[in-house]
Amino acid sequence: MSARSVGRPSVAVLSRTRVAEAALKLLDRSEGDGFTMAQLAAELRVRPSALYNHFDGKDDVIAAVRELVSDRIDVTCFAEQPWPEAVVTWARSYRGAFAAHPPTIAMFATMPLSGAARTQQMYETVVRAFRAAGWPEAHVLSAIVAVESFVLGSALDAVAPEDMFDPEGSEVQFPAFADAYAARAAAVPPAIRDDAPPHERCHRFADAAFEVGISALVTGLAEQLAAFTDGTPPPAS
Amino acid sequence: MSARSVGRPSVAVLSRTRVAEAALKLLDRSEGDGFTMAQLAAELRVRPSALYNHFDGKDDVIAAVRELVSDRIDVTCFAEQPWPEAVVTWARSYRGAFAAHPPTIAMFATMPLSGAARTQQMYETVVRAFRAAGWPEAHVLSAIVAVESFVLGSALDAVAPEDMFDPEGSEVQFPAFADAYAARAAAVPPAIRDDAPPHERCHRFADAAFEVGISALVTGLAEQLAAFTDGTPPPAS
Repeated sequence: MSARSVGRPSVAVLSRTRVAEAALKLLDRSEGDGFTMAQLAAELRVRPSALYNHFDGKDDVIAAVRELVSDRIDVTCFAEQPWPEAVVTWARSYRGAFAAHPPTIAMFATMPLSGAARTQQMYETVVRAFRAAGWPEAHVLSAIVAVESFVLGSALDAVAPEDMFDPEGSEVQFPAFADAYAARAAAVPPAIRDDAPPHERCHRFADAAFEVGISALVTGLAEQLAAFTDGTPPPAS
Repeated sequence: MSARSVGRPSVAVLSRTRVAEAALKLLDRSEGDGFTMAQLAAELRVRPSALYNHFDGKDDVIAAVRELVSDRIDVTCFAEQPWPEAVVTWARSYRGAFAAHPPTIAMFATMPLSGAARTQQMYETVVRAFRAAGWPEAHVLSAIVAVESFVLGSALDAVAPEDMFDPEGSEVQFPAFADAYAARAAAVPPAIRDDAPPHERCHRFADAAFEVGISALVTGLAEQLAAFTDGTPPPAS
């Protein structure tokens, strides 16, 4: 029997990407319990030791999964659009990338970035764009993290049930809330952004809140930026 | 042997609050795996059936845990401060309440609110305050959810390691990022808000990003509100 028999592919057919894709699939299925290296090896029908030809360990696999997810985040916008519009485009694609994989939202928000080189490259590009727009170096990361916090919280909201606030049965006790719930339902159209690519589409109430919030946040950040730059042209990046 | 022997307290000593506190303790310990009714009964040293004298089931327990966590959120600010300042105060205490219990962040962001009457009461108060400030009824919930998304994303950031972005070892590959990381570390003081109550204190980089973001978000929302109210006095709540 060949060592390359069906059911036990050789190490050669594994790749970091293939392993990361399998790990992301396990994560999505696990609903947050995560995965073990043994489960990952079983999913790929290889021995656990084969994984260690490509990865230092589980943290390294998770870094590769982070890269997979963050590959969907658009940073080309920073080269093509003025800073405020680019931040909105970046945030929309960022929310979509994470909302497509709910268990990754809280996980990647709280785990070190090291080892995820393509994700670090994303940050390198975003940091350069913020600096080019005039953000003082010491404030760049706080502004970026503020946007990310809104994006990841919005991704959680996007994967929540559309009717999570449904006040049915407590309209008498909480009338203002019930009225606001009904008024929103009547006012928010089925699709907020007809032009959105499929992976950026979430339920309509999440889209409505996201658009209100990202617009407000970028308006406020632009005012902070203007106060920093104080009329002088932004420094070169 | 008495039915009230040590190790099997009678149903009478249970209360919704005591059960909810035990469930929150299990949740915090579980790191996101949650808890079962059997584990909860064991923790309280009662039979599982005793829990059902107080709760319809696990969803009902979770609603009571949500109430416990949201009890820490300050809404008195809406009666005491102008709308923009009150939103900031509310957001700070909201972030602190959830950051104190990390597994609750993603959980409550994505589960229906029904059954958590004290939490619904919080929303009733907040909705009334937004309406009193002049927000049109159909836009109130989107504005509130936008703030909440930022708050919950910021709570995730607050429970992340302070050094999650540490670029050590990749400074040559990602120089702009490494410079921004070093500049932030040099500029952000150890405590952003000396006056913050203990449960609102998070690590300094999370505090810095939160303050930048909530300030920007409220600035932008205030501008949206001004466009709605267009100079006319806000309607009575």
